[in-house]
Amino acid sequence: MANLPYGVFSRGGDTPRCGVAIGDHVVDLAALAASGLLGEAARGWGLDEPGINSFMAAGPEAWAALRARLTDLLAEDGSADLRDNAELRARALVPMTGVSMHLPFRVTGYTDFYAGRQHAFNSGSILRGPQNALTPNWPHMPIGYNGRVSTVVVSGTPVRRPLGQVRSEGTEMPELTACRRLDIEVEFGAVVATPTEMGETLSVAEAWEHLFGFVLLNDWSARDIQRWEGQPLGPFQSKAFATSISPWIVTRAALEPFRCGPPERDTPLLPYLQEPEDYFFDLTLEAHLTPEGGTPSRIVRTNTKHLYYCAPQLLTHHALCGCRMQTGDLLGSGTISGPEREAFGCLMEQTWGGRDPVDLSAGGSRVFLEDGDSVTLTGWGEVNGQRIGFGRCEGTILPAPQKVGRTG
Amino acid sequence: MANLPYGVFSRGGDTPRCGVAIGDHVVDLAALAASGLLGEAARGWGLDEPGINSFMAAGPEAWAALRARLTDLLAEDGSADLRDNAELRARALVPMTGVSMHLPFRVTGYTDFYAGRQHAFNSGSILRGPQNALTPNWPHMPIGYNGRVSTVVVSGTPVRRPLGQVRSEGTEMPELTACRRLDIEVEFGAVVATPTEMGETLSVAEAWEHLFGFVLLNDWSARDIQRWEGQPLGPFQSKAFATSISPWIVTRAALEPFRCGPPERDTPLLPYLQEPEDYFFDLTLEAHLTPEGGTPSRIVRTNTKHLYYCAPQLLTHHALCGCRMQTGDLLGSGTISGPEREAFGCLMEQTWGGRDPVDLSAGGSRVFLEDGDSVTLTGWGEVNGQRIGFGRCEGTILPAPQKVGRTG
Repeated sequence: MANLPYGVFSRGGDTPRCGVAIGDHVVDLAALAASGLLGEAARGWGLDEPGINSFMAAGPEAWAALRARLTDLLAEDGSADLRDNAELRARALVPMTGVSMHLPFRVTGYTDFYAGRQHAFNSGSILRGPQNALTPNWPHMPIGYNGRVSTVVVSGTPVRRPLGQVRSEGTEMPELTACRRLDIEVEFGAVVATPTEMGETLSVAEAWEHLFGFVLLNDWSARDIQRWEGQPLGPFQSKAFATSISPWIVTRAALEPFRCGPPERDTPLLPYLQEPEDYFFDLTLEAHLTPEGGTPSRIVRTNTKHLYYCAPQLLTHHALCGCRMQTGDLLGSGTISGPEREAFGCLMEQTWGGRDPVDLSAGGSRVFLEDGDSVTLTGWGEVNGQRIGFGRCEGTILPAPQKVGRTG
Repeated sequence: MANLPYGVFSRGGDTPRCGVAIGDHVVDLAALAASGLLGEAARGWGLDEPGINSFMAAGPEAWAALRARLTDLLAEDGSADLRDNAELRARALVPMTGVSMHLPFRVTGYTDFYAGRQHAFNSGSILRGPQNALTPNWPHMPIGYNGRVSTVVVSGTPVRRPLGQVRSEGTEMPELTACRRLDIEVEFGAVVATPTEMGETLSVAEAWEHLFGFVLLNDWSARDIQRWEGQPLGPFQSKAFATSISPWIVTRAALEPFRCGPPERDTPLLPYLQEPEDYFFDLTLEAHLTPEGGTPSRIVRTNTKHLYYCAPQLLTHHALCGCRMQTGDLLGSGTISGPEREAFGCLMEQTWGGRDPVDLSAGGSRVFLEDGDSVTLTGWGEVNGQRIGFGRCEGTILPAPQKVGRTG
């Protein structure tokens, strides 16, 4: 069982290109493809590009072929083509310590869903009370909104605290302010590989085949801005300042051992949303918070199996109106919360709307994020003592701008 | 006073490239640039690309230089460089009748605002009654949401009626259905030319300089789907099936004669949103509906001066959180409605939620759009009997798909 996740790396400022992680090394796929070791077809996969989009667009047969070939080339008892070629090994097996990671794919669209029931219930309860927590549509379809593509960034990119309009409780006029309720959202991101045409729709089984893999996703959120701007058209500036993803896409193939069934649903889904197979995953997700100069404290431990809608259901619903889906569409799950407090996937829930501070195991506490705080998401599946991991998705909070505009 | 709008055209299936409309001709900017007539700098403007993005990114000095040079080359009493070069004239002045128009720019982001007060009041009144029509945030900021980039299409692209989830009044369960309340929205689209960095903000005056020009925009809307899906995160599938824009970008320079001041505002704006100059326009917008095989009836006549927030205010608010703005960001104004019924910019308002059919001057009536209906937006400014026009933004409704998925 090998992970073989896909990413985009560079070394010493050279051209970013596609790679696969194996142990402490990145396999330089551009170098392997150029050497001819990946066969003739690989020349059309764009492995020398700064995004795995072309390879994703090549489709499931190409993915299976490359996975099989890499498995063979990298196995101790596999093909000698790479093992016995010292010159190529030196070029194509790059120590992980010396590389910079980039966005693993060109993000062509970003849609954020709200597919976790516990999160929807918790946040609805905080805003509207438990009786009205879930809107009537929630059990019938994956609710989602278009996110902002231009600020989807790779792990390690700093996150500037946003300015925004906020109206405080009991006041009439809003103010312009730096966000005071800066939050994370622990999410699971699905990556769409093969496109659809405008006007085309997808069954859930078809949608599954259009997905390449998954990343960790932190949907940074400005709760005070969100509260004021959110009606009637949904989140906008409160989410548009940054969304961080992990640098490695873990493929569907690597996640096969962790597939599981859906949660119990008391409302039957319309037929177009019903899954013919198990498309959920049993994967642990954690978030750690590290104050500036401090040590990490775990603040979230949850699991992707707590989602109510699986990734192909998100994609099916997304394409239902004939919306053209593209290679590089990123579908965020929405915050993943489990039943216990530590499984709540954001501070808004853990502090119940800012009421109850979260104690940090390394000392101190938080209601929301402070400048200099760093938050790191990690995730993995484990079976028979073997782990398939997602790497890290990290971001550190910078102070807000002091004014609006260059001359403001 | 010349319009000189920018678009992307092709002829007989050749490579799409940038052009400028003048009378019945398209000026082939790629041919002019290659000839050297536009000077050395023009070689860096990407005028042979299928989008004017590179030229927009070149900034205001480049725009002014090209406008001045084109004006000189095309004037009867101007430079002889083009006039006396018969061979180049034959290549570079392309009859409009033989060309296909494409999206004028690569749309890198699409945000739809809700910046018309009459529309916000009308649609709020239909949904929530006149007392609660405007949400409290509305007079303080331009409310907007991220739209779907992948289905922004050029005029002439057919629009397939979407499938979606709808729950009818008085029923408990939603159904999967073809949209029964298919609508238009008459909007004005601003095109962002020069980018900002993540974390950067813009004053309103700075934002004005980042804008290149404007297009007509029809934000096709599925009202029944929108009603059911819209809470709590806003419109999604109800808008994602298609957004049509006109093929020519009319520049800020061409619209100078039509600038006008803001509407009366009873609530003062926060300082960061106040305009130091007049950034609104006095431009007439119309929509005509043509049933299949029928003749056109005018259904909307409105004016961009009815907007409450101008384009640089939209951009300033958009960038406020540090959202990175990109060359090719499209900012829709939201439906533009004036005070009289014919100035209401969508059928939802004109029929007051589907209650009162609109009579077509050519016979028949409509509550919402029927299959085969074609809707065409036009727009222009007029001063001293001279018009600056936007061309046409047209789309024809195709029937909905019969099933979900290829195998569904």
